[in-house]
Amino acid sequence: MARLIEIAEALSLIRHHVWQPCESERVPLLESEGRILAEDVASDVDSPPHDKSLVDGFAVCSQDFVNQTAVTLEIIEDVHAGQVPVRAVRSGETIRIMTGAPLPVGADAVVMVEQAKLSNDGRFVTLHAVPQPNQNIMRRQTVMQANEIVLRQGSRLNAAAIGLLAEVGRSHVTVFRRPCVAVLPTGDELVPCHQTPGAGMIRNSNGPMLQSMLAAAGAVAVDLGIGKDSIDDLRRKIAAGLQSDVLILSGGVSAGVKDLVPQVLSELNVQPVFHKVNIKPGKPLWFGFQERKDQGGTETSIRHRTFVLGLPGNPVSSLVCFMVFVKPLLSLLQGITEPKELSTEVGHLVGDHSHEDDRPTFKPAIVDWTSNERPVEVLQWHGSSDLKTIAHANALAFFRSTKHYAANSPVDLLRL
Amino acid sequence: MARLIEIAEALSLIRHHVWQPCESERVPLLESEGRILAEDVASDVDSPPHDKSLVDGFAVCSQDFVNQTAVTLEIIEDVHAGQVPVRAVRSGETIRIMTGAPLPVGADAVVMVEQAKLSNDGRFVTLHAVPQPNQNIMRRQTVMQANEIVLRQGSRLNAAAIGLLAEVGRSHVTVFRRPCVAVLPTGDELVPCHQTPGAGMIRNSNGPMLQSMLAAAGAVAVDLGIGKDSIDDLRRKIAAGLQSDVLILSGGVSAGVKDLVPQVLSELNVQPVFHKVNIKPGKPLWFGFQERKDQGGTETSIRHRTFVLGLPGNPVSSLVCFMVFVKPLLSLLQGITEPKELSTEVGHLVGDHSHEDDRPTFKPAIVDWTSNERPVEVLQWHGSSDLKTIAHANALAFFRSTKHYAANSPVDLLRL
Repeated sequence: MARLIEIAEALSLIRHHVWQPCESERVPLLESEGRILAEDVASDVDSPPHDKSLVDGFAVCSQDFVNQTAVTLEIIEDVHAGQVPVRAVRSGETIRIMTGAPLPVGADAVVMVEQAKLSNDGRFVTLHAVPQPNQNIMRRQTVMQANEIVLRQGSRLNAAAIGLLAEVGRSHVTVFRRPCVAVLPTGDELVPCHQTPGAGMIRNSNGPMLQSMLAAAGAVAVDLGIGKDSIDDLRRKIAAGLQSDVLILSGGVSAGVKDLVPQVLSELNVQPVFHKVNIKPGKPLWFGFQERKDQGGTETSIRHRTFVLGLPGNPVSSLVCFMVFVKPLLSLLQGITEPKELSTEVGHLVGDHSHEDDRPTFKPAIVDWTSNERPVEVLQWHGSSDLKTIAHANALAFFRSTKHYAANSPVDLLRL
Repeated sequence: MARLIEIAEALSLIRHHVWQPCESERVPLLESEGRILAEDVASDVDSPPHDKSLVDGFAVCSQDFVNQTAVTLEIIEDVHAGQVPVRAVRSGETIRIMTGAPLPVGADAVVMVEQAKLSNDGRFVTLHAVPQPNQNIMRRQTVMQANEIVLRQGSRLNAAAIGLLAEVGRSHVTVFRRPCVAVLPTGDELVPCHQTPGAGMIRNSNGPMLQSMLAAAGAVAVDLGIGKDSIDDLRRKIAAGLQSDVLILSGGVSAGVKDLVPQVLSELNVQPVFHKVNIKPGKPLWFGFQERKDQGGTETSIRHRTFVLGLPGNPVSSLVCFMVFVKPLLSLLQGITEPKELSTEVGHLVGDHSHEDDRPTFKPAIVDWTSNERPVEVLQWHGSSDLKTIAHANALAFFRSTKHYAANSPVDLLRL
């Protein structure tokens, strides 16, 4: 239980225990951005729904243009977008047609309006073009067919997907529910943000920081206030937090005599999975779960797990643990398919860097993401209580082993 | 006015006209995530507020350990986090101290609890260590001092910044207001998403897609419904949209006889800045603004501009124009400092790619962002009405000039 495990093993244990997402729910399309589809979606339309013109111009029979440099045709109808042609185009005739409008029967090409010259009375048009069959036309069903699956369960809904769902008639959509995550920073030294701390006290920075990260990660944060270093207060607040899908504690999980959290979790039948990971900052991370039976008491009620993460009390340790462990857990609960390993990007150090700690270590860094090499400047900082430096960083740089890294060495990055 | 301009010139014209962000507003800290700070924030506390222990252990006089391998000391007090030591440590004495707690007077180092062995009665401790002065201590003000500016106007508030603001006592914070953006897709061919389109009709996919992109870009979307191709309907809805900070139209800005939008904008004193950009898809982009005097009529009322963007009607054209032009405009209105040029990342083509269009072109692509080279697969697609393909892409690949790109060629990317 107190064995120090590696990051990859911790992530693997989280994946092993979080084996299914939250149940699904039906939401209005406009509230589905960033959510994960919990159904396969089929189109109810062809796209395009008809052979359509790709330009504003004149629908013609291409045969009329063989061996000609210019052809004069009679305009027999105007078709705007949203209208359907009434007449068919025969040799010597044309129908004026707008972008997106249905191609008239008989026509097999469209000549752009820029290549057209109208007669004085507007009844005829001279077209200076040699249209090939199908020119400026998109045939019905080119993009998709009715009943075709256009988005699969597990797809993340970005703006284009939302446009596509609108096109195929989905004003509502079934997605995985957002996990509810209770947040409980603990420690007698903590006062709320709006108070002035007395001697020996500091403000609760972890609570607001974690709530902000939860919202950005697609979860619904539940604020449990501040837990005191007392069995009674912790028992009451932890029990309340166990009603959520996830309970995140910070503080109270290292080895001090008042670190009461593991004791209360044990009392409340929260089963430990691991405690302490080979990572800096963040070593005292605690992970476990409680099986709970949902209210209702019928035979059909579903047994759920509440996952519990005990993060270290220093805010940067909490932030690193959130990025490395909590985010993947929240992704799993939302049905997001994530790589099995830590999902990093690669940059290159702008200067030499000596990493002399024996633990795999994350350090605040500033990365120019727009540059090909993604140059990485590792920031000087004061350790895991130094929120000031990390607030100015845009990445965490990951040094896996003790060694000297020369300038231009590749380095793994987590975006902040 | 109808001169075709380059992307860089269009961006430069947008920057020239959007010369100030929206006014600022005071919001609760927990609602400030992703917002831009409109004030400099000073700390009201030192951090740490006292010389503090970095570990759970025993506060000692390091002088006691000179030339010793183990030292036994009398425990005269326990200090937990949130408490202040009452006594001073003298030679031969120690105070038990928890991580984060204030260092007692007289002590100049802390020995970790892991190096300690208590006597049977618990009154003495034997420490197997040779602590150096300052060992396991962080001095007061190491991270920041009271009255120091810790975040500057213009900073984007991420989770770490929110933690920092909580630490320095800011339960509310002044940020730039989110711009209100009215959305008006136009075209007689459009029906709302919940209706089944009749012959010649298609559903309004642009509206939901644009609203989703606006929310993700930090704006507040105002839905104006669908604009018909009639002067009266457009005049009424465009006038309503001009009450917002930005009005985004889609459709009605190319060259068809029913493209009435530029006419109505002119009537309503919206001044054109540019129309048509050398970009594919997205060429018919229209940009202008209306000077408006806010309601109130007093001498102090501020003159504002409403910016108007006419995007092409095809959804992928709208999406590309949004990514390339509207997002930077919204960033400026929110006080976000963005690079002057198109802000792309670089990837590398996995296969050969021939780009044969004479316009700078964006194509849907799938990029593995976690791989060092960021390999780019350009997707086969059916042009600017093909939402299905773009919904499966995670980037737009940008081909600036007509040529053959060999495998491994670098290519600029916009993330979707």
